[in-house]
Amino acid sequence: MQETKHISSLQNQLIKKVLLLKEKSRERKKTGLFVLEGLLELQLAIGSQYKIATILYCTDILENTDNNAILKSFKTEELISVSLEVYKKIAYRDTTEGVIAIAKSKDHHLSTLKFETKNPLILIAEAPEKPGNIGALLRTADAANLDAVLIANPKTDLYNPNIIRSSVGCIFSRNVKMGSTTEIISYLKKEGFQIFCAALSASKDYTTVDFKEPTAIVVGTEHSGLSDEWLENSTQNIIIPMEGQIDSMNVSVSAAILIFEAKRQRKINK
Amino acid sequence: MQETKHISSLQNQLIKKVLLLKEKSRERKKTGLFVLEGLLELQLAIGSQYKIATILYCTDILENTDNNAILKSFKTEELISVSLEVYKKIAYRDTTEGVIAIAKSKDHHLSTLKFETKNPLILIAEAPEKPGNIGALLRTADAANLDAVLIANPKTDLYNPNIIRSSVGCIFSRNVKMGSTTEIISYLKKEGFQIFCAALSASKDYTTVDFKEPTAIVVGTEHSGLSDEWLENSTQNIIIPMEGQIDSMNVSVSAAILIFEAKRQRKINK
Repeated sequence: MQETKHISSLQNQLIKKVLLLKEKSRERKKTGLFVLEGLLELQLAIGSQYKIATILYCTDILENTDNNAILKSFKTEELISVSLEVYKKIAYRDTTEGVIAIAKSKDHHLSTLKFETKNPLILIAEAPEKPGNIGALLRTADAANLDAVLIANPKTDLYNPNIIRSSVGCIFSRNVKMGSTTEIISYLKKEGFQIFCAALSASKDYTTVDFKEPTAIVVGTEHSGLSDEWLENSTQNIIIPMEGQIDSMNVSVSAAILIFEAKRQRKINK
Repeated sequence: MQETKHISSLQNQLIKKVLLLKEKSRERKKTGLFVLEGLLELQLAIGSQYKIATILYCTDILENTDNNAILKSFKTEELISVSLEVYKKIAYRDTTEGVIAIAKSKDHHLSTLKFETKNPLILIAEAPEKPGNIGALLRTADAANLDAVLIANPKTDLYNPNIIRSSVGCIFSRNVKMGSTTEIISYLKKEGFQIFCAALSASKDYTTVDFKEPTAIVVGTEHSGLSDEWLENSTQNIIIPMEGQIDSMNVSVSAAILIFEAKRQRKINK
């Protein structure tokens, strides 16, 4: 670890780089870097073998806590203190942890997917639009210890700051891969997965299907559902019967209900 | 219905009143009025016997649609068109429906609670902090057709604009009541409900308890959980086993998993 530098200028090139990495997917792609924020997130990323290029911290926020010592135990190429003004400029509005890092991206292409179990249960989300929904799906995936989460036809890169933030770090702890719908369907068929598509038509009540074999639960967007390509390749469409007046559950809530029913069935089977 | 007036001044007293009703819980309480936005929300409110004092609409947004005709079929004391500038001032940023209404509040005190079934399944949320979480809970409650949702020790009135918006109108379609934790526990005991508290200690796996009798599922906040008063009066604490690294699911996701397990058990029982 190098000696600590200090930055107090908003015009500093590194500060401009942090802002660019937060705002522009293109910049993240070009450099292979992304920005994360918060001590827990940093710990999770390091625990999942992410390489940390730079840690920026603000002593005005960190002082009088044990966090300073924790921070200095992390491996990083650069450790830099920043002024409160600079920190506020680069941090989320309501974050008060005082730590931001630049980390190196991993390769999340489907071709790198590996499983540790022989009977995987995975979640697939097609073209999710809201970063907050992806974050919520990843939190559920973590709680259920899913074997993987696949994003089909992604609309954003995985290191969008809103995904990282809303996943509360689950983006680092989970086996998250991306690919086109075509690639993922081909993979699932080759590997012998059951494909259960959450859909409104030709669907069985989700409590009546058997989740005990290798299973992919596939969810679309709240507005338009899944593409025809998924529906044509579905082993069985499944549905959560809606009994209300509005019939509108958040996609992360629906996915959680399906995932935990699968977990329940698999627990009984043991 | 009165003849249509038009408002184009941001200084108009009615426009100021709308803003005040949106911003101030105190104002809503004092006047017994609240503001809602969107055609679906308005239809749901009217369908649930809410009285509509005033409808404000913006023809720049509504024209060329059938909505104008729908709008004029609603019963209201006042129907007023507003300029685009005024509409943008009083509407949510990303709303484009062109309809806002002032409606009369209902009494949501626990003492007005009635059930249509003999074996109710209800959800209780203690002191939920985020309006968005309350909205999501109400969407799930609607999908599951819960017999009631009770807010214990509420931190805001029910007509907070963020609750109305995030519930996508489920606030109107559902049987929502409020009361202190003490009042609600006393009511549940008198009526012979099982009280299942979502809690980390002395808890059974939620799939192993029997939800088929009259049941209240009780959830606390993500940060501090339930108060001791609930835990001391719990029939049984229940838990969703967490198997991940973060152990953090959104409260509305957890509640949905518990509610739909109860629904599953009750379906089998029929």
